[in-house]
This record gives sequence, C-alpha cells and structure tokens, in this order.
Amino acid sequence: GTMAEVLQRKVIAVGERIFKEGDDAASAYLIQDGEVEIYREAGGQKTVLATIGKGSIFGEMGLVDSQPRMASARATAMTTVVIVTRPMFQEKLAKTDPFVRALLNIFVETIRRSSK
Amino acid sequence: GTMAEVLQRKVIAVGERIFKEGDDAASAYLIQDGEVEIYREAGGQKTVLATIGKGSIFGEMGLVDSQPRMASARATAMTTVVIVTRPMFQEKLAKTDPFVRALLNIFVETIRRSSK
Repeated sequence: GTMAEVLQRKVIAVGERIFKEGDDAASAYLIQDGEVEIYREAGGQKTVLATIGKGSIFGEMGLVDSQPRMASARATAMTTVVIVTRPMFQEKLAKTDPFVRALLNIFVETIRRSSK
Repeated sequence: GTMAEVLQRKVIAVGERIFKEGDDAASAYLIQDGEVEIYREAGGQKTVLATIGKGSIFGEMGLVDSQPRMASARATAMTTVVIVTRPMFQEKLAKTDPFVRALLNIFVETIRRSSK
C-alpha cells in the first residue's frame, strides 16, 4: 500500500504524556494541531527543552538511530499528531540517496554526542 | 548526466586548508583517503573539534542550510576527497521524500543552535 493509506493520526488530551525519556523509540510525530512540551526530569527537577506547535516534528531522533528517547514529550494543549512509524520511515529511507542517508546518520550522531 | 559522470575528486597536501570558518559553504567532502582536522580559532586560540579519516563526511551542514562554515578544515595528511557540490546535492534532495527532507533541516537547525 501507499503511505497515505497507512497514515495514522492520534488525538492527545491536555497534560497527557506521549513518551518518556529512556523509552524505546518506535515513531516520530508531526503536530497537526496543538502544542507539545519536550522536557527532561532529573532529581525531581523538570527542564523544558522546547515547546513546539503546528507543523513541528518531534521524536525523530530514535527513528534514525533506534536509540532510546533522549527526553519526554507531553501535550500542553489538545493536540493532534500524525504518527510516522519505523516501517514507514524505513520505506522512505529505502528510496533515499545513500549520501543523504549518510547525512541523516551523521547529524543524529552529532546531536546525541552534544547532548550528553 | 548521471552523478557518477560529474563526481569530482581532489588531492589536498599536508597542512593545506580546505575551508575557513565563515566562508560560504558550497560543497561537502567525503574523505577517500587521508586525515582532516576540523577546528575553530578564537583570540589566537585554536580548538580542534574532530580529527576524521577515510569514509567520513565533512562540510555537510552548509549544504543543507546554506549558512557559512561553522569551523575550518585542513588536511593533516595527504588527503583525497570526493566533492559533493550544491547542485549535486539539490539533485539528490529533489528525489528525497519530503519527511526525510524535513528531518535533515530539523537536525541541521538543532546542531547550529547547540553550537552557538
């Protein structure tokens, strides 16, 4: 089937957590409407890394390198997301030029390294 | 013509600078053989960010977002690079899935932000 046929949408209630730091990363999310907070918790201290809205993508790092989530995400407004699963992403990657694929890996590695 | 027909190679002498921080970024480089140092200079102080070898890509950030070079690069051994120019990269991007393209932009933005 084509991508369009398997596109998944999900509505997330205000305050609902979408994923947690350390979780396995199986999907990325595209915000169709609403607001999402990306944050980390350490020693009972919460640090908000970003607050993002319509058109933003999040959770995309693990899709590329299969590493656990680096941060948590929760909806701060009623939010609708489009889910891009690993199989969908693999299908896109298979059609992607090897040089472009190499760049994706380099960038994700750079980001992981600099956030340690 | 195909990519293979326009592939450019360049041999760089030991100590030769390939590009300088602040330069316009028109190409990325794939090291076919040799060693390259990525560094920054500020107030007469040189900081080596990375030393990379065969199979590594460098100078790829500006190819994605057209921003000036974030660091300088010089050969620390006799080095052969394959040059990927902006038109070659644009040709690859044109065939790339929009979601994958969006990821490239997100990653480069994230790296630029975190290195300021």
